[in-house]
Amino acid sequence: MGFRIDCLQYCNWSETVFRQMRAGGLDAVHVTIAYHETFRETVLRMEAWNERFARHADLIAPAGSAAEIREIAASGRTAIVFGAQNPSPIEDDIGLVEILYRLGLRIMQLSYNNQSLLATGCYEAEDPGLTRMGRAVVAEMNRVGMVVDMSHSADRSTLEAMEVSSRPIAITHANPASWHPARRNFSDDVLRALGASGGMLGLSLYPHHLKDGSDCTLQQFCEGAAIAAELVGAENLGIGSDLCQDQPDSVVEWMRTGRWTRAVDYGEGSAAAPGFPPQPDWFRDNRDFPGLAEGLRHAGFSAPEVDGIMGENWMRFFEAGFGPGAA
Amino acid sequence: MGFRIDCLQYCNWSETVFRQMRAGGLDAVHVTIAYHETFRETVLRMEAWNERFARHADLIAPAGSAAEIREIAASGRTAIVFGAQNPSPIEDDIGLVEILYRLGLRIMQLSYNNQSLLATGCYEAEDPGLTRMGRAVVAEMNRVGMVVDMSHSADRSTLEAMEVSSRPIAITHANPASWHPARRNFSDDVLRALGASGGMLGLSLYPHHLKDGSDCTLQQFCEGAAIAAELVGAENLGIGSDLCQDQPDSVVEWMRTGRWTRAVDYGEGSAAAPGFPPQPDWFRDNRDFPGLAEGLRHAGFSAPEVDGIMGENWMRFFEAGFGPGAA
Repeated sequence: MGFRIDCLQYCNWSETVFRQMRAGGLDAVHVTIAYHETFRETVLRMEAWNERFARHADLIAPAGSAAEIREIAASGRTAIVFGAQNPSPIEDDIGLVEILYRLGLRIMQLSYNNQSLLATGCYEAEDPGLTRMGRAVVAEMNRVGMVVDMSHSADRSTLEAMEVSSRPIAITHANPASWHPARRNFSDDVLRALGASGGMLGLSLYPHHLKDGSDCTLQQFCEGAAIAAELVGAENLGIGSDLCQDQPDSVVEWMRTGRWTRAVDYGEGSAAAPGFPPQPDWFRDNRDFPGLAEGLRHAGFSAPEVDGIMGENWMRFFEAGFGPGAA
Repeated sequence: MGFRIDCLQYCNWSETVFRQMRAGGLDAVHVTIAYHETFRETVLRMEAWNERFARHADLIAPAGSAAEIREIAASGRTAIVFGAQNPSPIEDDIGLVEILYRLGLRIMQLSYNNQSLLATGCYEAEDPGLTRMGRAVVAEMNRVGMVVDMSHSADRSTLEAMEVSSRPIAITHANPASWHPARRNFSDDVLRALGASGGMLGLSLYPHHLKDGSDCTLQQFCEGAAIAAELVGAENLGIGSDLCQDQPDSVVEWMRTGRWTRAVDYGEGSAAAPGFPPQPDWFRDNRDFPGLAEGLRHAGFSAPEVDGIMGENWMRFFEAGFGPGAA
């Protein structure tokens, strides 16, 4: 069995969650530390993580490289990799990319649903592509070794990020729209371009991204995974579960509306179901990763393919993607 | 010849200054990055240093440990160590100590002339000693390995910092008041306690801290050094020149008044001479360090003592003082 990596979670972090990561065999988890947070607010999130690293040193440790993930995994703990789902932490200041890299940020989305200073989000009516600052920041992220993530971005922006970036990009948590049409899932064209450019797709287990939502079966999910593998290549496929365990619904409200509107925005939810949707019963928390691997195997993926999807592919991608690039 | 270290400068940084550091044989310089700056403003100073490190990679590099200083020195460059002359960068948030440590801050004063949230400055009428937050922050600095600097603090606060700190502290830039009475110079009692606790004194070459000010001769300075060596021990003595080369007088105004008063405060200057005082002709810039070493030798310090004062003592102190302490 290879490395097991989940390339996106935003749980209500607790000893329970960290113990479940160990029980599920997770070697590394990419955790979101910002949705709409400013630089200072993001640093406060990092401070809270420093507290957790001190308190739960037997279960988790921070990682900024594939080598560190390997060391932490070898010590029987789960490596925590910081990411932001929005470029809000760099505000209007490109110099903060290097500062945040130094503080451990390794993955950053260029937009989150809405237009940002860098790129367009998947809920906007128009997508003018990467902005001037967006192009400058992608180059800076390439330089320091921070992965460009387009999970919540619109198509043109996403395709331009692949073109402009000198290093492969990621869509850490989304599924093929041709399997389940959802604003957050991606078209075949975008996914083919992602795979062709060496980029990674993390399969999402967030119910709104799944066929039949919370009722999606493991078999259905694996069918989606097979479609994704056709599009990006099994070697460019991983998991980005989007697990938001134990969060109150106020958190999904913050994700959706931050400080940008006075109105209610239900995002992928609805007035009838405004909160977090219930997880499918075969993926309730980190302990269900082994079952996921089994499901993929039963669905016809080869053992090496399953190992790749369950973490080895992310390890290879992190190895190449984190840290200073060739000048 | 051992390592050459200047444990405090705040120049108007330029290629000229960095080349003069090389010409003067400086292996490491402790540079001030904050006087009254908030956290965000301090990060902006770090961003400006990142620019300098990229632009002048042949002359300077950032260092956070004695080992890094050694590597940088071996490559024929000058190591830059970040320090703050005020705890303003941590604002009211102890979590920022670890964050700023991660960003390279290795030395921090607990106060700058005025009362801070942590300790009392040397210009206050009353000195109630370390505050509650001051005691907590000293423990946190001890934990992460950030050196406590009391250069601009008042006596009781300074003595209490020595008592409370589990690791030796520094007065990076000041002289004995018994040699030259000045508010910024320290009493024999404080200096004796500093040496007895394994702390370091960096001799200042800022004219207001020198006998006869800008007219102080090299011989007079070395007499002051001999008095200091009597008080703290030659092995606890170094240089902290306080060189503020090429700075406009607006900078000394910022140092003195920051944002804390609407009035003019001349600090160590006067209405007749409000700006930076001229340097003594034997110490105008970094190229004059070799002459300083020669002067100390002629004044009767032994060759090993001179090597110690010119940098070896700071290296030993950095070796023990930077980085996580024993729990």
